[in-house]
Amino acid sequence: MPPDREEIGSRLKRLAQALTDRGLEAALIRYPLNIFYFTGTFADGHLLVTQSGEAFLLVYRTFERARAEALIEEVRPFRSLKALPDFLKDLGIKHLALEEDRLPVAVYRGYERLLRDFALSDLSPILRQLRARKSAYEISCLRRAAEMLAESIEAVLPSFRPGLTELEMAGMLEAELRKRGHPAYTRTYAFHQELAYGHLLTGEAAAVPSYVTTGQGGRGVVGFPQGPSEKILREGEPLLIDYAGWHEGYLVDQSRLFYFGELPAALHDTFARIKQLMESLEETLRPGITAEEVYHRARETAEKLGLSPCFMAHGEERVPFVGHGVGLEIDEWPPLAPRVKVPLEEGMVVALEPKCHLPGQGVIGLEDTFLITREGAARLTLSPREIRRLEP
Amino acid sequence: MPPDREEIGSRLKRLAQALTDRGLEAALIRYPLNIFYFTGTFADGHLLVTQSGEAFLLVYRTFERARAEALIEEVRPFRSLKALPDFLKDLGIKHLALEEDRLPVAVYRGYERLLRDFALSDLSPILRQLRARKSAYEISCLRRAAEMLAESIEAVLPSFRPGLTELEMAGMLEAELRKRGHPAYTRTYAFHQELAYGHLLTGEAAAVPSYVTTGQGGRGVVGFPQGPSEKILREGEPLLIDYAGWHEGYLVDQSRLFYFGELPAALHDTFARIKQLMESLEETLRPGITAEEVYHRARETAEKLGLSPCFMAHGEERVPFVGHGVGLEIDEWPPLAPRVKVPLEEGMVVALEPKCHLPGQGVIGLEDTFLITREGAARLTLSPREIRRLEP
Repeated sequence: MPPDREEIGSRLKRLAQALTDRGLEAALIRYPLNIFYFTGTFADGHLLVTQSGEAFLLVYRTFERARAEALIEEVRPFRSLKALPDFLKDLGIKHLALEEDRLPVAVYRGYERLLRDFALSDLSPILRQLRARKSAYEISCLRRAAEMLAESIEAVLPSFRPGLTELEMAGMLEAELRKRGHPAYTRTYAFHQELAYGHLLTGEAAAVPSYVTTGQGGRGVVGFPQGPSEKILREGEPLLIDYAGWHEGYLVDQSRLFYFGELPAALHDTFARIKQLMESLEETLRPGITAEEVYHRARETAEKLGLSPCFMAHGEERVPFVGHGVGLEIDEWPPLAPRVKVPLEEGMVVALEPKCHLPGQGVIGLEDTFLITREGAARLTLSPREIRRLEP
Repeated sequence: MPPDREEIGSRLKRLAQALTDRGLEAALIRYPLNIFYFTGTFADGHLLVTQSGEAFLLVYRTFERARAEALIEEVRPFRSLKALPDFLKDLGIKHLALEEDRLPVAVYRGYERLLRDFALSDLSPILRQLRARKSAYEISCLRRAAEMLAESIEAVLPSFRPGLTELEMAGMLEAELRKRGHPAYTRTYAFHQELAYGHLLTGEAAAVPSYVTTGQGGRGVVGFPQGPSEKILREGEPLLIDYAGWHEGYLVDQSRLFYFGELPAALHDTFARIKQLMESLEETLRPGITAEEVYHRARETAEKLGLSPCFMAHGEERVPFVGHGVGLEIDEWPPLAPRVKVPLEEGMVVALEPKCHLPGQGVIGLEDTFLITREGAARLTLSPREIRRLEP
């Protein structure tokens, strides 16, 4: 079920309040995902929101669909940006905030020229903070995303067997996700990150690092050197499924391990310690703890559990986080990473992914997505938290 | 086969020449795909290229993999950007060009502060022009991409039948693409565009417009309102498969039509005229014709063939292009669109996608990817150019 008018109204109200608090007269939103968040429709256009909460969706293309889907009153065709300055002046606006985390410089320069009579500020911090705290509606979407992911994994496991390539198994799992409404697209926030559905990786291929900031890399293919590859699944090695579930825009992130045959005892032992680490770490997830504190607590606990050399590290290089916000994008605010002095708040949703990288053997780890509540962390992801033996 | 040192050397040489021609001392490249284009590896870092063609890959993370894959000599760990100004000064560089089409303003501001003693220019026009002209190696990749797409479609068609949803059929096709090395990721150039593999659409759902600038939209799902949906394929309606083939980073774009049962004669007739339009249009693809001329020729020919009301239009709104460059990204330079006064050149690769949007019935169209040669257009995409009846 898409968001309703009440949900959208409450988001706009929070935005108006944030604009007021920061002395910004209005927000001019261009990124389609942010337009969706505040209107219920994706549009090729601009959304203007004022301090008083008035919202105008100015649609460049596909006006009729935008008008039919939008959950705000003011949806107008707006074919030429040249009319924008006068439109703003008529509303008495002199100061605008833009998405500086999204707009490429080349595009931003166009706005600077067009809006040279206006003061321009950055809207990004406001948007990422607003989006970080999830509503009851959003939490219900995240729960559905967790269900569809767990169901898709259960549905495909009986078809897995040693001898299949990572790519083949990924395609089989993704067909199950597709059936359940996944658009085959996973939104990322950082401009230089790329992710498909997730990572299905086997044995030593899972421990190959990549250019993206994820819990593991994978060999991938030439031109996309992360994720599944031609590597064939063998008996006695870990199969990692780090995938995102999806429901109507919302993502949850989960990693689970499987194997055929017998897994070396040392890997079972590492898994037991990772599980202990996860249990200890989720206890820390309460309103008030900062993102960097969660990160450092993970490092300390890994040290105590004797996981330190392999924990979130490729040789000398550390993987620079232990978790991340998740929602409409897979890498939402805040990252659970050094120097992020952001306190967790009730309603935030974060994924924790403690993992050990064992070159030549694979990745042993877990990942779950949690809602921060007053009482602590409520786990949203649903697959059993075990390393599961599969029968061919 | 990944690019070799000769290929990478030749790309760097062309970049050095372009920098020289424009009086730019050096390029500082951050976007991973552009780093791949000029080094053969994706890296989380920066690539510096000077007028004399010297190239330094400065790697922030996953240094070992970058060093192993890079086809240039100078690959260095570079964990802190603070060292960058001195590194540049030591090379005698005072003037840098950055990817202004890629860097979000927020990121660019960081460079402005860090590099306040340097003059900064825009690298984007150079990169998009260099990448638009494909080498023999790239053309061989594009040909392989066309093969894998045609093979995947042939492999999946026997499993299609009325009663399946668009999402189910998409998942089945994508599993075939996955097997053949597709990373489940399709790169787009424009910052506000999104695309999964492509669009598999049936009947009237194909004629639903969307927020993305593609040949058609599709209903999609809440949160991703384009592409496949829960719509069920029925007998007697067109099934459109507009998908991109992939080979080692390179994409080709192709659209084909299928149906079960009997298709209304009027749709066969529209298809025959679209095919005629395509044949006429591909004749125009020669070095020297401008992108906008191809667009206007398409509109004129559609008019002559009586396709005008439905041709690349949603009601009153025109779909503002008739084709686009394609390569490492699905929407490369140049768009075949109004006001794009860019002449086609030998070695450019463009997709043409003349399509008629028939509300309530679907989309009747074709798409092929062409290499521009001295003699004219060489078609790269391989599926038979017909509207094909399928047997359940």
